[in-house]
Amino acid sequence: MTSTVVRSNAVTPGADSVTDIKKKLRNRKLLFAVLAMAVTWMATNSPAGAQEIADQYDRSSATGAGAVNMVVLDNIFIFFCAVLVLMMQVGFALVEAGLTRSKNAANIMMKNLMDACIGILIFAAVGWGIAYPGDFNGYIGSAGAFIDGFFSGSLVDVSPEALADDGFYPLAVPVDFLFQAAFAAAAATIVSGAVAGRTKFVGYLTYSVIITGLIYPVVVSWKWGGGFLDEMGFIDFAGSGLVHMTGGFAALVGAMVIGPRLGKFSPDGKPRAMPGHSIPLAMTGVLLLFIGWFGFNPGSQLQADMAVPILGVLTAFAAAAGGVAGMATSWIVGGRPDVSMAGNGMLAGLVAICSGIGEMSAVGTIATGLVAGVVVVFSVYGIERLKIDDPVGAFSVHGVCGFWGLLATGLFATTSPINGAEESAGLLYGGGAGLLIDQLVGGLAIAAFVLITTGILFSALNSVGLLRVSPAEETAGLDISEHGSPGYASDMLTTSAL
Amino acid sequence: MTSTVVRSNAVTPGADSVTDIKKKLRNRKLLFAVLAMAVTWMATNSPAGAQEIADQYDRSSATGAGAVNMVVLDNIFIFFCAVLVLMMQVGFALVEAGLTRSKNAANIMMKNLMDACIGILIFAAVGWGIAYPGDFNGYIGSAGAFIDGFFSGSLVDVSPEALADDGFYPLAVPVDFLFQAAFAAAAATIVSGAVAGRTKFVGYLTYSVIITGLIYPVVVSWKWGGGFLDEMGFIDFAGSGLVHMTGGFAALVGAMVIGPRLGKFSPDGKPRAMPGHSIPLAMTGVLLLFIGWFGFNPGSQLQADMAVPILGVLTAFAAAAGGVAGMATSWIVGGRPDVSMAGNGMLAGLVAICSGIGEMSAVGTIATGLVAGVVVVFSVYGIERLKIDDPVGAFSVHGVCGFWGLLATGLFATTSPINGAEESAGLLYGGGAGLLIDQLVGGLAIAAFVLITTGILFSALNSVGLLRVSPAEETAGLDISEHGSPGYASDMLTTSAL
Amino acid sequence: MTSTVVRSNAVTPGADSVTDIKKKLRNRKLLFAVLAMAVTWMATNSPAGAQEIADQYDRSSATGAGAVNMVVLDNIFIFFCAVLVLMMQVGFALVEAGLTRSKNAANIMMKNLMDACIGILIFAAVGWGIAYPGDFNGYIGSAGAFIDGFFSGSLVDVSPEALADDGFYPLAVPVDFLFQAAFAAAAATIVSGAVAGRTKFVGYLTYSVIITGLIYPVVVSWKWGGGFLDEMGFIDFAGSGLVHMTGGFAALVGAMVIGPRLGKFSPDGKPRAMPGHSIPLAMTGVLLLFIGWFGFNPGSQLQADMAVPILGVLTAFAAAAGGVAGMATSWIVGGRPDVSMAGNGMLAGLVAICSGIGEMSAVGTIATGLVAGVVVVFSVYGIERLKIDDPVGAFSVHGVCGFWGLLATGLFATTSPINGAEESAGLLYGGGAGLLIDQLVGGLAIAAFVLITTGILFSALNSVGLLRVSPAEETAGLDISEHGSPGYASDMLTTSAL
Repeated sequence: MTSTVVRSNAVTPGADSVTDIKKKLRNRKLLFAVLAMAVTWMATNSPAGAQEIADQYDRSSATGAGAVNMVVLDNIFIFFCAVLVLMMQVGFALVEAGLTRSKNAANIMMKNLMDACIGILIFAAVGWGIAYPGDFNGYIGSAGAFIDGFFSGSLVDVSPEALADDGFYPLAVPVDFLFQAAFAAAAATIVSGAVAGRTKFVGYLTYSVIITGLIYPVVVSWKWGGGFLDEMGFIDFAGSGLVHMTGGFAALVGAMVIGPRLGKFSPDGKPRAMPGHSIPLAMTGVLLLFIGWFGFNPGSQLQADMAVPILGVLTAFAAAAGGVAGMATSWIVGGRPDVSMAGNGMLAGLVAICSGIGEMSAVGTIATGLVAGVVVVFSVYGIERLKIDDPVGAFSVHGVCGFWGLLATGLFATTSPINGAEESAGLLYGGGAGLLIDQLVGGLAIAAFVLITTGILFSALNSVGLLRVSPAEETAGLDISEHGSPGYASDMLTTSAL
Repeated sequence: MTSTVVRSNAVTPGADSVTDIKKKLRNRKLLFAVLAMAVTWMATNSPAGAQEIADQYDRSSATGAGAVNMVVLDNIFIFFCAVLVLMMQVGFALVEAGLTRSKNAANIMMKNLMDACIGILIFAAVGWGIAYPGDFNGYIGSAGAFIDGFFSGSLVDVSPEALADDGFYPLAVPVDFLFQAAFAAAAATIVSGAVAGRTKFVGYLTYSVIITGLIYPVVVSWKWGGGFLDEMGFIDFAGSGLVHMTGGFAALVGAMVIGPRLGKFSPDGKPRAMPGHSIPLAMTGVLLLFIGWFGFNPGSQLQADMAVPILGVLTAFAAAAGGVAGMATSWIVGGRPDVSMAGNGMLAGLVAICSGIGEMSAVGTIATGLVAGVVVVFSVYGIERLKIDDPVGAFSVHGVCGFWGLLATGLFATTSPINGAEESAGLLYGGGAGLLIDQLVGGLAIAAFVLITTGILFSALNSVGLLRVSPAEETAGLDISEHGSPGYASDMLTTSAL
Repeated sequence: MTSTVVRSNAVTPGADSVTDIKKKLRNRKLLFAVLAMAVTWMATNSPAGAQEIADQYDRSSATGAGAVNMVVLDNIFIFFCAVLVLMMQVGFALVEAGLTRSKNAANIMMKNLMDACIGILIFAAVGWGIAYPGDFNGYIGSAGAFIDGFFSGSLVDVSPEALADDGFYPLAVPVDFLFQAAFAAAAATIVSGAVAGRTKFVGYLTYSVIITGLIYPVVVSWKWGGGFLDEMGFIDFAGSGLVHMTGGFAALVGAMVIGPRLGKFSPDGKPRAMPGHSIPLAMTGVLLLFIGWFGFNPGSQLQADMAVPILGVLTAFAAAAGGVAGMATSWIVGGRPDVSMAGNGMLAGLVAICSGIGEMSAVGTIATGLVAGVVVVFSVYGIERLKIDDPVGAFSVHGVCGFWGLLATGLFATTSPINGAEESAGLLYGGGAGLLIDQLVGGLAIAAFVLITTGILFSALNSVGLLRVSPAEETAGLDISEHGSPGYASDMLTTSAL
């Protein structure tokens, strides 16, 4: 019975860890066996993808009054999804603040607040015009015209005629913008934690403006704006690559250029543990990100249809699998179920599923999440071994697992993809290596572009002295040295650990 | 004028407490007088229930395009409700962490995270098939077939035909699953706080797997799965009994089997106050639970109709009445308005209204919430007097007030119940004692089943040494002893209280 | 090109602050220049308002099944908006607790919890009947009849006939109530932070009952209840005046009558900094308020239509502009980008846009937010210079910027206003000073009424000894002296700062 195999796949990690934490080797063997069985099963079963099902719901039968309602419902749905994605800003802020030290907590909250404020304004003024050149306005050159329209009326052209001109694309421009701006802010804020505790605020703001105004929009234009990755057949439904790899690789570059925090590595290169100041805040952030992701993924369907429930369940599955795998991996490797690794595992699963969630079955989703939860733990340790100080694991969660998510689509996609690659299926569903190669190429293109552009950006900021605070300021903490007042009143802290 | 009586009923608790905190006895008499008047009024007024009104909105007139829209709206609505219920996981985590000690805060966050992760996966693999045997799949024996379908396609069968086969039951299977899985995770996580500070993580995981995979689903099958309680006429709209009593009685058993925390009771049996480490976090959790409950109760309507607004208002009324009553009771009994008792009172009101919210008037709802807010305070003190250490009051809030909620339905239900008992009304609305007895029997059945099964479970875990940590580990705190790193960095804590 | 000017307007504050923090004077000149250019541009461009566009979506074509769906969608939409507004209670609690001292944190959480509980019950019993005299029931005199209906059935009359009788007003009474009750609770809770750290809990409860039951409803009746401000042509879409000025001016009076916290001002009148105990909690609150505001503003459309996306984008713009301006202003004035000023700037922008959001273009919205972010900083410093101790800046954010929001409507409104002033446009859009004067009159009326009524209320409470705690209680902290147990366990605090 193949179903038994699958059930074991879903259940095993938690159950194993529980009953047998000492027999590491046996566990590891079992894990491989289960994965092997799951792969076999998947190769012989091709469940219908979300989009295929959604198409059965004939939207074209919704005409007249019904059609009007449908469009309103679409727009209300995406509006609430955008609100959920904006709520991820709270989640990011708490994860990053909680996993770093108390003396920089206000600085991190401020960076996240400004990522949202600047993200919304800059993405409106510049970024959106770059990201969607074909749809609403010309490329960089004609961004001026876009901005003119934005402020003088075309922003608000949500008349039935305007939507019909657009092929009855159901989304009104404003709500589409709001949803996309929230994504831009999310991409930007991923870096915040990686450079925590040692970055000048003015340098961070500059970075935030550039990434939301230029770097992220260019990457988005390649796929969602109809660019070369889209024509190639690359699949990235909700942005494992476009959003998370962009933020994640920028985080890597930021952490490398700015260098590790004082005292992170001993003179002989050994890493020193610098535990987060509040795991309760950090885990609250993880759970709020989990909630926000139900806007991120299902909202990427860009209309209210019957695919939304499926996208919701798959989002939950990926998160759950990632959380369990992160916990189990830290337990097996480190001897204890590490709390922040479980949290990072959940986020890793969520990041990884973004790409292929529109074309995956439940079992493909769970496999993607499980692998992400394993990968993120090894990546966090590996990055530290390379003497890169990424205090919250931003690169591992978003960069590495974002890339894994792209490849997972190449492995697990079924035959009903959404975004322009209608004939492709993943390697394990009989589609050959074609899609996998497309995904690899797309991932490498994003990685290369972000590494180069943010490399230039952070190096330039560094060379003009805008990137790193002085050792004295770092020791005092950025809350006081950059913002003039502490994140916690004196009675909340013992002086010893400052 | 009966309306004057009712107005007094709603307003009195707050106003009383304000103007006269010293005259306890007078207050108590007034409370009884007001309740007596309210009961008289209720017996002579029979407002229409939520469902009766909803039925006036003829869904069957929505055919063709309208019918399609309506189904999409139903599914989008339940999707967002499921997200709100999942957000309750944040609320539970913060309430439980905030009301217990700092050295166990990360452990509690981890337990809640894993309740969500494991809940989603185990409920998918096993629990759901048990909970709804008649609807989607066979009982335990045929769970394999369900799992097979789940992974190979039937999860995603949301075609109009499939829904029509199901009698045009509007909910697609995936979103129904997501909503129910969130409930399962909530039921599981109730126990987390009751066993805080002394439980082995591996034992907790085992418990979490068993309750979401077996115990909770069996209870659910009795009513929502069409089992014997459903046939009997038992009413439990959103789960005062099925969800909260299950979690609450499991919490009681867990707390009893594992025993009190070290130092909770002095050698002569006197309880020692062990205040929560952060009331701000705990109350944030209470307020987030309040918010999440607007998915829990109105979402239990399982379709988007005009009953939803009513269910929303009644949810708010029960919470408000519970919060005011909890505060007033702690004030009268203890001499001060206790913050955590006010919070627990709000939660108690929300727990209690789940059962009858579909068949109650505003005044019945407020009465249910007021009584819950009073009962929870006395229960918390009573449990402590029995030398049971339930650090967050989980049994009092969910177990005791869950049971009260079932009985409240037997008292206050109007003549338009929803779930299979169409002819029943509560004792105070002229329905006789029949429904009240049904509710009592249902509550006793749930209590007995959960006490026995979790009794076996926790005793088994205890006997194989998987339940309680060593005294040294407990003293060090579970964050360090179970997870290897502290929940708060050293500068956030003085060492004295560890 | 005017568009260039506008783009500079949107982008400048952040970019300036980043590249040149020392040249304050130059910055200030640039700011004025940009604002002048923006004003010129706005006077020559008259974008369509949200409502004008929404009207293009012919709701009247939605008949039969479609019409039924539309009403259900309207009600579900407002239901979720009400939930978002209720979530603002969490935001307020965290902002206020975070910005004040640890020894009063539980007291603040309790006050916010009770504002919600009492607000819901009292607004149901009394306030709503006063606020909407024309729609549902008579003025104060006939509130009894309303309450009778409320409890005996008319609350739940959501039949198509009842809605049709009401001119097919799409909102069912219960969801309208829930939405409005959440507003009442928000108005009440604004005061909580201004009187933090020195107010008797019993006095605060009395205030909360009076403002949600009487003062706020009377103000609301003037406009949303169809009173004299409505007839005059006064515009207040989501309540810059009705909600925020009411709360803000009550906060001012409360802070003045109760006097400053011990030690806030030295004997020679110099203010002493009393930093908030947790900026992370405060900024979490700011971000949650930001999220909740997407229910507050778009929900004030009171139906699900194509204006909602626009209202969402404009809400985001105002928040972003306010946050950037608050940060930049604190940077220019104080030499550092202050975290709480950035947060207050975001809230100020959100408060200010409430009034005119239904009739403003994107550029008018951003201008409104930018000015609010500047004004709030100067106001906070100014209030302190007047020796008024408003610990969280409640009057500056809600009172001052609420008034600014009213005036901004008089400046920036386009020619398609929503609420009864269909022919009015703001001064900068060619409408002359008429609307501006109406807005000024409305603001003065609200300010005068609230100053007088809350002046009487707080003075009365003070004279009977119910307002201020004793110096010993204040020094010990309200958590212990008023509620009997600390907000933080002893290991979370050093004793030195208590």
